[in-house]
Amino acid sequence: MSFTNSRKIRIEWSHCDPAGIVFYPRYFEIFDNSTAALFERALGMTMHEMFRTFHSAGYPMARTRARFIRPTRYGDDVIVDSTVEFSRASFSIEHRLSHDNLTCVQCSETRVWVVPDPEHPGQVKSHPVPEAILEKFRG
Amino acid sequence: MSFTNSRKIRIEWSHCDPAGIVFYPRYFEIFDNSTAALFERALGMTMHEMFRTFHSAGYPMARTRARFIRPTRYGDDVIVDSTVEFSRASFSIEHRLSHDNLTCVQCSETRVWVVPDPEHPGQVKSHPVPEAILEKFRG
Amino acid sequence: MSFTNSRKIRIEWSHCDPAGIVFYPRYFEIFDNSTAALFERALGMTMHEMFRTFHSAGYPMARTRARFIRPTRYGDDVIVDSTVEFSRASFSIEHRLSHDNLTCVQCSETRVWVVPDPEHPGQVKSHPVPEAILEKFRG
Amino acid sequence: MSFTNSRKIRIEWSHCDPAGIVFYPRYFEIFDNSTAALFERALGMTMHEMFRTFHSAGYPMARTRARFIRPTRYGDDVIVDSTVEFSRASFSIEHRLSHDNLTCVQCSETRVWVVPDPEHPGQVKSHPVPEAILEKFRG
Repeated sequence: MSFTNSRKIRIEWSHCDPAGIVFYPRYFEIFDNSTAALFERALGMTMHEMFRTFHSAGYPMARTRARFIRPTRYGDDVIVDSTVEFSRASFSIEHRLSHDNLTCVQCSETRVWVVPDPEHPGQVKSHPVPEAILEKFRG
Repeated sequence: MSFTNSRKIRIEWSHCDPAGIVFYPRYFEIFDNSTAALFERALGMTMHEMFRTFHSAGYPMARTRARFIRPTRYGDDVIVDSTVEFSRASFSIEHRLSHDNLTCVQCSETRVWVVPDPEHPGQVKSHPVPEAILEKFRG
Repeated sequence: MSFTNSRKIRIEWSHCDPAGIVFYPRYFEIFDNSTAALFERALGMTMHEMFRTFHSAGYPMARTRARFIRPTRYGDDVIVDSTVEFSRASFSIEHRLSHDNLTCVQCSETRVWVVPDPEHPGQVKSHPVPEAILEKFRG
Repeated sequence: MSFTNSRKIRIEWSHCDPAGIVFYPRYFEIFDNSTAALFERALGMTMHEMFRTFHSAGYPMARTRARFIRPTRYGDDVIVDSTVEFSRASFSIEHRLSHDNLTCVQCSETRVWVVPDPEHPGQVKSHPVPEAILEKFRG
């Protein structure tokens, strides 16, 4: 099962560094927002509502990697295509950021779904992604 | 002469702090983007194109102040209304960020238009906002 | 009663924008960190420990204003002097960021001390700064 | 040839998200600063001076990956150990961020050294890292 969402992003002055191009940590902010948008698209609720509805403590990043192929600059309108795949205890997302149909950045994420750990207040523990969420992604 | 632009902003997880609300420096990023959007709306070109077209080195902030009235949270869709007024050597912008028609943040900016200083390479100097830009704002 | 703390900050590439100077919202991040450092200096505990010890929900910003007098650039080592004054229900902080003994940025903050609101779970309410904290600042 | 630098970093409120832990894109800012600190340590000049001295246009990221093993929180003092290795046309850096001697984040970077491209004004091209820099790292 895979599910894709696309959105348009304006590259802003605030994303860019003294070289005049996007400062690469900002891409990870853009991709984090894109992951939230993907879930919102599938579930029809915001990330805030989703976490509350499913008693989640979030979906922290376990590992990520990115390739920076072409720079982008403030004023560029870019497209981020994000595709998720679920496995038992985690899920992975591929983001592709493109400008004028050319791939500029590719990023892979592996995240885990976590819930509050009743045995250790203030801590979280991993948990399978709720079936009700998986169903929404299956459409 | 005044000119107003409005845009909708999604408050993202990346804007928020451990209190679960927007970390206030992120509002200044949002307002900086809103100022760029205001110029783009009036001129019909991106900030990048504007700076190149008018040989500008930017419009750095001289002073700003903000009041934080109500917090906003990730998942909120807020409106930023931005109004500019021009004086001879500078211009001021008022931003109002609202959620559900309630004002959450008010911000005032005073910026100067700068151009490269031919007598001091790598330095900039203030310059009146070009008349061609003022005309666009007059509509 | 006033109390001052000074610290040295390295201006980093990550603070700077395509004009090669600090992107002004980053100054507010620097000043927010400077406020935390001021409390840590007076109390001898981190902000995290202070909030836990005093059952605080934080000290959100009510209003701030800043003047940007001289730009700073990555590689600059700057000094931030921060002075706090307490009034009954709020406190104000003045930050002065200087480079080579020249003032580059001045910033004023007014913050409120907040605690969880027992009548509205998930909400906070303002509260006088605890006397035990004021005593530490009195030295 | 490898060269290592270590530095202590205070995790700040500004690094953290509504889960109360570091928002992972902020780690990449920390690592970017750590790479700058590594070069400064070896060369005895700031990144700004290095780029000017060697007519460089920077060392943009080609690809990076990170593993997030344990969360860190505001108030934590963490150590970043950064080790560089040079190959002909690029260099790689391994960062290890640890707290109380436990590894929290591991990150690998591959960067390229770039210089202005005389044939395409405003563009850059890759270039071997200058021998004078390699010598400094050899000690």
